[in-house]
Amino acid sequence: MRNLCMTVSFDGTNYYGFQSQPDGNTIQDHLEEAIRQLTGEKIKIIGSGRTDAGVHAYRQVFNFHTQSAIPLERWCLALNGRLPKDIVILEAREVKPGFHSRHSAKRKTYRYTINANQYPDVFLRHLQLHHPGILDIDAMKEAVTYLIGTFDYTSFASRHSTKQNHVRTIYDAHIEVDRSKCREGHPRDQGVIELFITGNGFLQHMVRIIVGTLLQVGEGKRNPVDIQRILEAKDRSAAGPTAEGKGLMLWNVEYNFMEDKPEPPSFALDEVEEDEADSTE
Amino acid sequence: MRNLCMTVSFDGTNYYGFQSQPDGNTIQDHLEEAIRQLTGEKIKIIGSGRTDAGVHAYRQVFNFHTQSAIPLERWCLALNGRLPKDIVILEAREVKPGFHSRHSAKRKTYRYTINANQYPDVFLRHLQLHHPGILDIDAMKEAVTYLIGTFDYTSFASRHSTKQNHVRTIYDAHIEVDRSKCREGHPRDQGVIELFITGNGFLQHMVRIIVGTLLQVGEGKRNPVDIQRILEAKDRSAAGPTAEGKGLMLWNVEYNFMEDKPEPPSFALDEVEEDEADSTE
Repeated sequence: MRNLCMTVSFDGTNYYGFQSQPDGNTIQDHLEEAIRQLTGEKIKIIGSGRTDAGVHAYRQVFNFHTQSAIPLERWCLALNGRLPKDIVILEAREVKPGFHSRHSAKRKTYRYTINANQYPDVFLRHLQLHHPGILDIDAMKEAVTYLIGTFDYTSFASRHSTKQNHVRTIYDAHIEVDRSKCREGHPRDQGVIELFITGNGFLQHMVRIIVGTLLQVGEGKRNPVDIQRILEAKDRSAAGPTAEGKGLMLWNVEYNFMEDKPEPPSFALDEVEEDEADSTE
Repeated sequence: MRNLCMTVSFDGTNYYGFQSQPDGNTIQDHLEEAIRQLTGEKIKIIGSGRTDAGVHAYRQVFNFHTQSAIPLERWCLALNGRLPKDIVILEAREVKPGFHSRHSAKRKTYRYTINANQYPDVFLRHLQLHHPGILDIDAMKEAVTYLIGTFDYTSFASRHSTKQNHVRTIYDAHIEVDRSKCREGHPRDQGVIELFITGNGFLQHMVRIIVGTLLQVGEGKRNPVDIQRILEAKDRSAAGPTAEGKGLMLWNVEYNFMEDKPEPPSFALDEVEEDEADSTE
């Protein structure tokens, strides 16, 4: 049996999320159907984690075991020809038998995009939360720094989280602002705000609740240091609302493909072993 | 009567072009309907030119005369609330009575986008022509320089062009390459190629035929200097095929809003006076 690992990019607008569901129409369903058409095998793929309905992925990773002898370099083109236009496989590699997209993942990065110009961008409207009100972006930049570290993120997790332990490590969180689409002489055009956040795992709705809270900081309803108090509360009601899914994109999943087998799992990854998925954003 | 001039951005994917047609579902139809809902007036708007089905506009310009006393700053928001999500008005200004979006235009710029990476970009698939084959981008960059000047562009015009005169001036034409989405270590990812072309007017399908011809240069089927021979032929069959509409975007239309009335028209603009529209890309 070969173990194949692939990187897939998808526009989640028209799907009920990554992972298979009774109602169908998920990314996983389409990937498994394309593999079935190509190889004749009925295979269950393993994703690096779930993504919610309407959430996108620039680089989601999955793996599966196959008997197929199709040469590695032909898989992408062959599967892309059998997939809808909003799902594209970007890379395929053969990995060690023990590789597991979820357990072997070292770091994940999400991007959340807020269009803070007065009017939305018609071309990227499916990828951006439009927030026309004036935001204090410097306050938001300060607020994200308080998220970095190892904390119990219960306040930033869905009440429906099935995880026993909500301790995660955020390695990096920062905001970039692109002002290239701002109209000249329009002070209400504040640019496109992108939050990049990297961690060893994310709880259900975690990035979206962080964004909903950051927007309250930007609107002056909270102070940046309130993030510390919210973390300490370990209570979902201490944080802000859950921002819309369409602004969220799984940006990258990092592995060490050179290793023979997964390293001893860290605390967060240990817990993942017990549970179906680490990330359910 | 007030004369209002507006800048509109639209995703042309789901429309039969800018200008009203018997079959309906054009950008103009939706703009006129939104104005009617807002003011009660049945108005014909004047666009800076037509765009074909599936073609987009970052900044299309139109004007119309109205009796409405609605303050200038309220028009954008009021109309955007009555427009579909893929049409957004970005700016509104009051102009002199003699201003005419088509006759008063000084320069127009189009952008054409070719994704020359091995696999398409799922998020921008409605805005890019995907060309996975290897292209000689330097040859394409050289080829576009031969387009700059005042020429008879008959070879680059649709056979259905209704214009008497095909002489136009191209002020600038250049290619930019964005490699930010290229996968590391994948030589077949050549980046996203953007052609920007600025002129005093464009003939029907002109930019798309230029792009179809440039792609043949990139594929090694023609030499860059062939552009000169094609121009001299004044024969549509001398040029390449018409590239898909979805990669084309009306990028900008330039005016001199400080002038009291339009300058004496140049040759190309003179001809426009006789004809319905200058650009029918």
